[in-house]
Amino acid sequence: MIKVNENYLKLEKNYLFIRIAEKVKAFQAADPEAKLIRMGIGDVTLPLAPVVVEAMQNAAAEMGVKETFRGYEDSGAGYDFLREAVAGYYRSFGADVPAEDIRINDGAKSDCGNLVDIFGDDNIVLVTDPAYPVYVDSNLMSGRKIVYADSNEANGFAAMPSADGYALDGKQVFPDIIYLCSPNNPTGSVYTKAQLAEWIAYAKAHGAVILFDAAYEAFVSQPELPRSIYQIEGAKEVAIEMCSLSKTAGFTGVRCGYTVVPSELKATASDGTEVSLKQLWNRREGSKFNGVSYPVQRAAEAVFTPEGQKQIRENIAYYQENARIMAETLTELGIAFTGGINSPYIWFKCPDNMDSWSFFDRMLSEIAVVGTPGAGFGKNGDGWFRLTAFGDRDNTKEAMQRLKKMMKA
Amino acid sequence: MIKVNENYLKLEKNYLFIRIAEKVKAFQAADPEAKLIRMGIGDVTLPLAPVVVEAMQNAAAEMGVKETFRGYEDSGAGYDFLREAVAGYYRSFGADVPAEDIRINDGAKSDCGNLVDIFGDDNIVLVTDPAYPVYVDSNLMSGRKIVYADSNEANGFAAMPSADGYALDGKQVFPDIIYLCSPNNPTGSVYTKAQLAEWIAYAKAHGAVILFDAAYEAFVSQPELPRSIYQIEGAKEVAIEMCSLSKTAGFTGVRCGYTVVPSELKATASDGTEVSLKQLWNRREGSKFNGVSYPVQRAAEAVFTPEGQKQIRENIAYYQENARIMAETLTELGIAFTGGINSPYIWFKCPDNMDSWSFFDRMLSEIAVVGTPGAGFGKNGDGWFRLTAFGDRDNTKEAMQRLKKMMKA
Repeated sequence: MIKVNENYLKLEKNYLFIRIAEKVKAFQAADPEAKLIRMGIGDVTLPLAPVVVEAMQNAAAEMGVKETFRGYEDSGAGYDFLREAVAGYYRSFGADVPAEDIRINDGAKSDCGNLVDIFGDDNIVLVTDPAYPVYVDSNLMSGRKIVYADSNEANGFAAMPSADGYALDGKQVFPDIIYLCSPNNPTGSVYTKAQLAEWIAYAKAHGAVILFDAAYEAFVSQPELPRSIYQIEGAKEVAIEMCSLSKTAGFTGVRCGYTVVPSELKATASDGTEVSLKQLWNRREGSKFNGVSYPVQRAAEAVFTPEGQKQIRENIAYYQENARIMAETLTELGIAFTGGINSPYIWFKCPDNMDSWSFFDRMLSEIAVVGTPGAGFGKNGDGWFRLTAFGDRDNTKEAMQRLKKMMKA
Repeated sequence: MIKVNENYLKLEKNYLFIRIAEKVKAFQAADPEAKLIRMGIGDVTLPLAPVVVEAMQNAAAEMGVKETFRGYEDSGAGYDFLREAVAGYYRSFGADVPAEDIRINDGAKSDCGNLVDIFGDDNIVLVTDPAYPVYVDSNLMSGRKIVYADSNEANGFAAMPSADGYALDGKQVFPDIIYLCSPNNPTGSVYTKAQLAEWIAYAKAHGAVILFDAAYEAFVSQPELPRSIYQIEGAKEVAIEMCSLSKTAGFTGVRCGYTVVPSELKATASDGTEVSLKQLWNRREGSKFNGVSYPVQRAAEAVFTPEGQKQIRENIAYYQENARIMAETLTELGIAFTGGINSPYIWFKCPDNMDSWSFFDRMLSEIAVVGTPGAGFGKNGDGWFRLTAFGDRDNTKEAMQRLKKMMKA
């Protein structure tokens, strides 16, 4: 008789966005005339760059001609033209990542979820709190135990490793798998090179692997801050990096990202033999993935051309200006926040010591602005609130005007 | 310290296509002038239908305009326009599959590999032998035990369930998860409705789930043969179906397929509660998948329009004619085979009682035709050989002429 994976039955349903949607719906039903401004979901709003559209259209045309039609991709790891383009992009900001260590995927979420398949279920996972819920759920689905590192106001929402380990079932343990996200979702905080070096040293000391989520790297504007963990010495022996074109080039609906598993990354099997994690990952993908759509790969390649970089940089600058406007408003109002400068997220402390959901209700009912309650990302998120800079300029300005009016009322 | 998933270390490397490539390379080095004809790999060769190219180009253009740009898809299960189109396609051949039970994916291989995540690792898996290697590997990766049902000449390479169960570790056991593929890869055999009804009854009797791979359904030309397991009564309570546009519409490089997990499909948890497999699957995909590229979904939608069906049917007819030519040749030569009529694969008995690899060598060295040794698909494949009908017409004819010459020499 079929037996289900009972770990699924223990998962908590993530009610965050469902609850937001319900509250918004009720608000709109009660006040259909209100001009709602949505700054909650981390989706982009600007269209694809012209070179990207053209590249996809040309590739579609190639697929309609027998001589240039392409079927299965040989390896499924991505065409060389794209892997080389990503390697060149890494080089442009000082990270030496060889094309053969890069796999192209249909978005960072898939690999983020699937990567853990190559690890045993008895590994202990460390997640910074607050965090993107997928890190937690994809490990609970395999029954792995999770410990949390607190990101909070005291450490600028950039948790650092604990030399004493972490409490789990009445014992102090050290993690085997460490999730880091920088620039961080939801807090917008960015690790410095020195901070990442500390995490790398910690991982090395405990034989752990770091899963580094660099999805927001393109928003780093201060050149001294790292955009890739591979800008830090020794990272290749301990870190896997996941990145995406979703926020870099507006690919949330196009679906393309990439994962780096360095050749240098090894583990030791129970019989003492050395195992290459890259080989395990290629084996996993060889059986359970068949590559990314060829026209999508050509669209992604266009992002990394000089003209593509120019065009996407205009979009990123637009979002960055939104973030600047938001940061300016919060500064003016004397509200503590992280993010904004090197991140599309602004993470601020709810005024008047309100909890996240009460402040959500207040924003919605008083000024018709929708944000995301920080409590939805973990216990350290309560009392904090996330707004995104991915909206329209006029709406962003309007929302900030309304916020000022509300706070000064 | 990080612990790898040690099941991966027990996997045998699939040398089949690597070994073929090596042999072909050596042959070409020795005889660079020989005109090689490749009939080994199951990839299509005809270009995408014009309506498909146009739909993808139009969708790419939409993505370049702010007003029509699309970011994240809400559910990640596929846009309604495509799920409805697939439901309509099912209705066209008598299967009643509601749109809400269909999830759109980036190709059947991903879902085929990922679906097993929702099942416990202690389920026993039944695979027909010979078979597509992904069924076996994706379960070995989770440490599941596998039993095999023999497909052989005696049963027309269409294994039927064993009332006595299957031998495993010295005991007779009954399977919990049953993989069926019809039209079959590699053997081209097709289950009749009565045969599928028998498998459904068997699954019901033992509380098993059938994972039905319908990737080649579009090649069924005899209307009395089923193209979907849902054409058989009771299937919705026991079967998940995976299908793909790869072979139907030449999407091997575009990447789009669909999986049906019926609402009726339930399992019982260890505490006795009833669990919906569809809900578990949606939960898995919600955390580990973010939907298919919008332009790809529009391209897929075009396949299901009347004009799209007309255009892809021309391509399928072309491959079917190749298959007919191959079948005719084998009949003329008195060689036993399955497939060809309702399948793009021809599976034939190696003449003179040769084993698969010896016959591979003979074909390559004597007539420069590359096929796939049946032994690569399982023990019952030895002594058999697979050719595909996805090639060029002239090459197919030429290969058959060469085969006749070789056999009559």
